[in-house]
Amino acid sequence: MSVTAAHGFSAAGAACGIKPGGVPDLAIVVAEAVANAAGVFTTSSTAAPPVHVSRRHLSSGSAKAVVINSGCANAGTGGQGHTAAIATAQAVAAAYGCDPSDVLVCSTGTIGPQLPVERIVHALPLELASDPQAGADAATAIMTTDSVRKEAARSTGGFTIGGMAKGAGMIRPDMATMLAVITTDAVVGSMRLQRALEGAVQVSFNALNVDGCQSTNDTVLILASGASGVEPDGESFTDALVEVCSDLAHQIAADAEGATRVVILRVTGADDDDEARELGKFVADSDLVRASFYGGDPNWGRIFAALGAAPISVDPDVISIRFEGVLVAEGGTEAVFDGQALAERLAGGGFGVDVNVGPGSGQATVLTTDLTPEYVRFNGERS
Amino acid sequence: MSVTAAHGFSAAGAACGIKPGGVPDLAIVVAEAVANAAGVFTTSSTAAPPVHVSRRHLSSGSAKAVVINSGCANAGTGGQGHTAAIATAQAVAAAYGCDPSDVLVCSTGTIGPQLPVERIVHALPLELASDPQAGADAATAIMTTDSVRKEAARSTGGFTIGGMAKGAGMIRPDMATMLAVITTDAVVGSMRLQRALEGAVQVSFNALNVDGCQSTNDTVLILASGASGVEPDGESFTDALVEVCSDLAHQIAADAEGATRVVILRVTGADDDDEARELGKFVADSDLVRASFYGGDPNWGRIFAALGAAPISVDPDVISIRFEGVLVAEGGTEAVFDGQALAERLAGGGFGVDVNVGPGSGQATVLTTDLTPEYVRFNGERS
Repeated sequence: MSVTAAHGFSAAGAACGIKPGGVPDLAIVVAEAVANAAGVFTTSSTAAPPVHVSRRHLSSGSAKAVVINSGCANAGTGGQGHTAAIATAQAVAAAYGCDPSDVLVCSTGTIGPQLPVERIVHALPLELASDPQAGADAATAIMTTDSVRKEAARSTGGFTIGGMAKGAGMIRPDMATMLAVITTDAVVGSMRLQRALEGAVQVSFNALNVDGCQSTNDTVLILASGASGVEPDGESFTDALVEVCSDLAHQIAADAEGATRVVILRVTGADDDDEARELGKFVADSDLVRASFYGGDPNWGRIFAALGAAPISVDPDVISIRFEGVLVAEGGTEAVFDGQALAERLAGGGFGVDVNVGPGSGQATVLTTDLTPEYVRFNGERS
Repeated sequence: MSVTAAHGFSAAGAACGIKPGGVPDLAIVVAEAVANAAGVFTTSSTAAPPVHVSRRHLSSGSAKAVVINSGCANAGTGGQGHTAAIATAQAVAAAYGCDPSDVLVCSTGTIGPQLPVERIVHALPLELASDPQAGADAATAIMTTDSVRKEAARSTGGFTIGGMAKGAGMIRPDMATMLAVITTDAVVGSMRLQRALEGAVQVSFNALNVDGCQSTNDTVLILASGASGVEPDGESFTDALVEVCSDLAHQIAADAEGATRVVILRVTGADDDDEARELGKFVADSDLVRASFYGGDPNWGRIFAALGAAPISVDPDVISIRFEGVLVAEGGTEAVFDGQALAERLAGGGFGVDVNVGPGSGQATVLTTDLTPEYVRFNGERS
């Protein structure tokens, strides 16, 4: 269940010919009526034209349709790319009966080539449906190097939140080559929607660090149709939204390019949660740490070195590190542990690493993967 | 020619038993008399005990001896590690007749294990010599994952600067797992020595980014004996020092773990040199960019995305990118070029990439390498 799980939305996915061989590459999500909407975008200064267009169209706090193409990022495309993004919005508006400013546009794929917008235009209007298959078709059409489609949904207290996402590489906090569209039938105003989305993104997609590479196109959108008639209290809506976003983020980590392990890195004892998150991101960004994850090696020294290199100063003499609950370093020095037994526990797949940096109450969890020879081979191929 | 190229210094390298199998792991450089000295150290907040000890001993602006062990970083070793670093300095002082505060201590190798300081003490005093072989022996003894020793020297205007370095992984700007000892017989005061060293490090070792991983032990030291009797003017001394440091930095890049290509990344058109250097480092830090270097792929889109993700804002519409002088992107969009011909030019080995980000006069050159499956395999092995 995905973007069509909530009442008031229909969707479609199709092949419009941007990708060769009839592979699905065009997804549409349409609300029955103009819906409250919010979004979080890449902070890149080379953000793609569709990001600029969607950001502007969202300034009203409402939207009716989201169109996403895969196979071409429409990034590094200058003024022509901007014109193509606007033309896409205009074609979608004409096809589904709304104003172009009510259309949000996303692209994902290779950076550089111009978007063949005429292929999108010719493919419209796609036949929309509100059943699970339509949601699955849309989630399939936004895939690039993903090996599986990513969908999630939660129903609670009379309302539903559902969504889809894509992303398998070029993924790091601050929204890197990652797209997600979330829909809900809860009654939520656009200001509240924006705040809830920002909070949920911070602890889900932004707590994900696969390769430290932020992209030009990252976008998370949410549309609220209000079709359930239920106006949930703040906490129950936020909780459900965090669940959906976290579910999608975990699916992205599990499908990361070449990854063989998902590592859940928990940092505690920092001065505040932001510092804990920054330390966690810094550790998860280290090629040496991630290569040792690949080897299933409880190499606490590399984590210790990565913590030291972080922009936030840490006291080495209080650092303790656990792999799967086994204490491997305490007070900044090596602890006594059964290396052989621990190596066997780490051989099996993903694992948890706990890092305590002091007596503070700040904590954060960062999701990462191992760095593997397959990742390098995959990304070393000419695109 | 290395640390013994300049008059007034002798050196030795030997196996003291920290590494198994009689592999050289202890190097000594001794000045005939207490020399003016300066140093640049890692900025890590988990810096190793020897870094703290050497920093304190250098506060006098002078030193007589440098002792370096490989095979153990003496990092993540707490108070016991600090005591071991001081004991090492005391043993060297006793062996070569100076005050412990005139001894600088460096360690490199695995983080975590305590330093077996008694092995260093038992190996002292090593028999010193001032011939090229003695310098080579010292340069060999500081190697860890290095496949070749790194030495450089320049003689000009009646004085000589020579040095040795080690480093093959965990290398990034701000001095990461990299040690270098430089000696000169020029007459240079310690304040001027410090300024000259900081300047030279900035454009050589700090312009090197192999894997973005800063370490706990990075140290560059320089000792000036004054034995030539020549007091060079500021520029000629600095120029020669930059040459020696750059030579060593290039040797480190060429020997980077698993690397198959050295890439010289030149950023121009930034507001100032610092911004150019920061942009260059950010691009050289991208796993995706470095994986495309491995593939010999002129993938300008990944460079474009990395520039956008940098903390310094760039104008996408003026970015131009060249591979080996061939324009592949201009005005933020793809240029017309012969991809096949360019791919053939990039197939051969290292190459140059020029990135222009605007009309400014700021420029910088950053040295990096490709990210390879071999790097990951190497660093995925349990240490």
